[in-house]
Amino acid sequence: MNFKGNHILSVNQFDRDSIQKVFDVAARMTPYAMREKRTTVLDGAILGNLFFEPSTRTRVSFGTAFNLLGGEVRETTGMSNSALAKGESLYDTARVLSGYSDVIAMRHPQAGSVSEFAEGSRIPVINGGDGPNEHPTQALLDLFTIEKEIKYHGGSIDGLHIAMIGDLKFGRTVHSLSKLLSLYNNVHFTLISPKELGMPEEIRATLESAGHRVTVTEQLEGSVDADICYQTRIQEERFPSQEEANRYRGKFRLNQDIYTKHFQSKTVIMHPLPRDSRADANELDNDLNMNPNLAIFRQTDNGVLIRMALFALTLGVEDIVSKFDRAVNWYSNKSHLPS
Amino acid sequence: MNFKGNHILSVNQFDRDSIQKVFDVAARMTPYAMREKRTTVLDGAILGNLFFEPSTRTRVSFGTAFNLLGGEVRETTGMSNSALAKGESLYDTARVLSGYSDVIAMRHPQAGSVSEFAEGSRIPVINGGDGPNEHPTQALLDLFTIEKEIKYHGGSIDGLHIAMIGDLKFGRTVHSLSKLLSLYNNVHFTLISPKELGMPEEIRATLESAGHRVTVTEQLEGSVDADICYQTRIQEERFPSQEEANRYRGKFRLNQDIYTKHFQSKTVIMHPLPRDSRADANELDNDLNMNPNLAIFRQTDNGVLIRMALFALTLGVEDIVSKFDRAVNWYSNKSHLPS
Amino acid sequence: MNFKGNHILSVNQFDRDSIQKVFDVAARMTPYAMREKRTTVLDGAILGNLFFEPSTRTRVSFGTAFNLLGGEVRETTGMSNSALAKGESLYDTARVLSGYSDVIAMRHPQAGSVSEFAEGSRIPVINGGDGPNEHPTQALLDLFTIEKEIKYHGGSIDGLHIAMIGDLKFGRTVHSLSKLLSLYNNVHFTLISPKELGMPEEIRATLESAGHRVTVTEQLEGSVDADICYQTRIQEERFPSQEEANRYRGKFRLNQDIYTKHFQSKTVIMHPLPRDSRADANELDNDLNMNPNLAIFRQTDNGVLIRMALFALTLGVEDIVSKFDRAVNWYSNKSHLPS
Repeated sequence: MNFKGNHILSVNQFDRDSIQKVFDVAARMTPYAMREKRTTVLDGAILGNLFFEPSTRTRVSFGTAFNLLGGEVRETTGMSNSALAKGESLYDTARVLSGYSDVIAMRHPQAGSVSEFAEGSRIPVINGGDGPNEHPTQALLDLFTIEKEIKYHGGSIDGLHIAMIGDLKFGRTVHSLSKLLSLYNNVHFTLISPKELGMPEEIRATLESAGHRVTVTEQLEGSVDADICYQTRIQEERFPSQEEANRYRGKFRLNQDIYTKHFQSKTVIMHPLPRDSRADANELDNDLNMNPNLAIFRQTDNGVLIRMALFALTLGVEDIVSKFDRAVNWYSNKSHLPS
Repeated sequence: MNFKGNHILSVNQFDRDSIQKVFDVAARMTPYAMREKRTTVLDGAILGNLFFEPSTRTRVSFGTAFNLLGGEVRETTGMSNSALAKGESLYDTARVLSGYSDVIAMRHPQAGSVSEFAEGSRIPVINGGDGPNEHPTQALLDLFTIEKEIKYHGGSIDGLHIAMIGDLKFGRTVHSLSKLLSLYNNVHFTLISPKELGMPEEIRATLESAGHRVTVTEQLEGSVDADICYQTRIQEERFPSQEEANRYRGKFRLNQDIYTKHFQSKTVIMHPLPRDSRADANELDNDLNMNPNLAIFRQTDNGVLIRMALFALTLGVEDIVSKFDRAVNWYSNKSHLPS
Repeated sequence: MNFKGNHILSVNQFDRDSIQKVFDVAARMTPYAMREKRTTVLDGAILGNLFFEPSTRTRVSFGTAFNLLGGEVRETTGMSNSALAKGESLYDTARVLSGYSDVIAMRHPQAGSVSEFAEGSRIPVINGGDGPNEHPTQALLDLFTIEKEIKYHGGSIDGLHIAMIGDLKFGRTVHSLSKLLSLYNNVHFTLISPKELGMPEEIRATLESAGHRVTVTEQLEGSVDADICYQTRIQEERFPSQEEANRYRGKFRLNQDIYTKHFQSKTVIMHPLPRDSRADANELDNDLNMNPNLAIFRQTDNGVLIRMALFALTLGVEDIVSKFDRAVNWYSNKSHLPS
């Protein structure tokens, strides 16, 4: 896969080599994110950060990643007043807006919209989520986190055992992550969900035909020797009605007691965030906050590294970033913080 | 006209010399927008980009223009929660906000509002559109596009034949453009619109008394030897009701067949954008997208150059921009792209 | 008080020494805000400007202050679509968003929210207003303005006479300012308000027990030899209903006639802004705009200096700012402007 000048639209574009390339560059971004140094490699470059569907954390993460490389960000949020609402085609929007920046990160509520936009764009477009369809940077940051976490315990993605819990039907996160994991060898997937929210048959078939082991169950039982427990949010906004969403709210919770009962002491806990911390939802209990294996905030931190890597690769500067190193003048204790 | 430190509020401020000055500076901005090089001349300067009425493309275009000169952008969009909604006067808003930047670009739904604001401002204000009244940067980018396009065919604005089609009554774009064109010699205006949407009498009188030829017609007929065909959007938000807007929707369309039948093979097609691409509107058909004379995306690209020029002139840096030239470190194919 | 790496959440954190420290640094920021020079000390640093409750002037003031120090701003406005609305805890939001910047300025409609957020944050948080509770940067800029204005007349905060007029019950501004003033010696407070909108008993008690003189009255009477007249806005959004808000609208107005009748010719007029300039409100009449003692726009200008100082102190760069001085390349007449 050639990154320079190209769009990042789907996890389907990636093979193991290109994933490794992204991860290598992402790892080299760590000292910048940790504020041990900074770089001006993209000084003067402009990111068009187009969030036609709001998403604070993804939007800010993209913007921060670009700033950390030295670039500027021009941002658009929401759609109600935009030309799109007045009947402008995605092609026109893309032709116009691609004249205003060097690279675009885009989120849009409609499946396929980002790819359609990319066809009109004269500059690289990175998919920041197109409705229920794709969110490739999330899948990459999840996989990057998995690799870092299990490497710490001496493991690797080949031979990984991952438990996925919760809404496996509507959660695009677990779909995309599964696709990326299927590129590796001998992964064991334990899929825990109510029947109605099970992993789509098509994805299960893909995993099995690629030689992976898939265990399906409707509830947490006995001891699960998973390396990773990936809890998914019930994405209420994907349900047709609030009533339907409520039916599953608070099911498939995880807290310290359940964790201790069913998982290993080294099992890493992941979640795509945000987690619903209201009492009746409580999908991932706050009593896990002190658990050192709770990796959820390391995931979002890793998201910045992955997005920095994708910008660097897409703009072809991945090998010259450190040529533009500068000192950090201000006080920061980020390099000493547990994240 | 002295630009340095002054407001840009209306096309009425401009004569041929000052227009030429803007165009000369805009032309010199091309290598920066094409990413052949970059400049840091406004490094540390701040644009207050105040869009009290949303307009994605105009807002981002102003912001990008300022970034391309090396400056920072502080942005405000919408009005519902602002102090203006709580009874603050435009004078107060201007006094306060002009303390927060070096230059202001402002859009506001109310005619006259930007001028009123400018009276309270301690820094230069550029009008980004004040409701039905003025949008001088659009008129300048349209005229700049006309000059570039017809120069390519060996023509000049003096002696130009321009056809204006569609809503000529509510479209402030054609009003302002007409005023600027009236400063030149011997322009032929062919105005094509339904009676109810005709060019205001006052503007027609101005054009005629300045010695220009004005032909008025209610529909496209026969062969029009226009250099420019300027199609205008039915600005639905300017109509009192959606019903009234719908009456004219889809009338006065242009597509490849109509173009071939009525225009010359070199007639340049322009439109202020956004164009409504819904089937029942389709004011400028997508089948024109491959027509090399479709200049609509060159217009929006030129808008960045014009806004860069106005910022440079207003802040008095137009002659030192290249002193602060820097190399572009990242991959870009913008200089090779058809725009 | 040690600023470096710490949160600024409440006026209660401050003693006279730490206030003086802020004011000293703020004064040194003047040439940057006046555009006599600029600094790149925070080049590459990122401010997370989180305005979960909209407030144009405070938001832009924080952003501008950071830009003036050379830093970048990533901004979030509104809350309706954010993760907070989907049940995310402030702790989670803070853990995530503090991974995206070096310092955070935050406003939120709920009392206590900013402190709760700060507990989860891995970087310094500056309170930009948490509902009816605290707005410490406003109190500091008010006090800074008072000191500058009365120093001009040869006075000092010790021994100050300040009249506070209007809504003293709901106006957090006068509460916080009173707390800061109570740290000084021998201040005379003249509190003028209708009974229903009087200064809370607790604050009056604090002032009196600190040895200050407090005069309470229901209307402006006779001659008030105040150094400062601090007029407060009827914060309509704090009332349970518009009807209740309307009852007090336009009461306790100040115009040039009332000023001349009741105050000294050198009494400085202050107001937290925005002021309601609608005819039926008119709390601070526009006929005062030419009065040289109207300090309301000097207040907002001072707000930038105070916020620059707090960023510099929090990030530990207050003593190296001028090491990174650069020339201002563009035309600016800010240093000659009355503000």
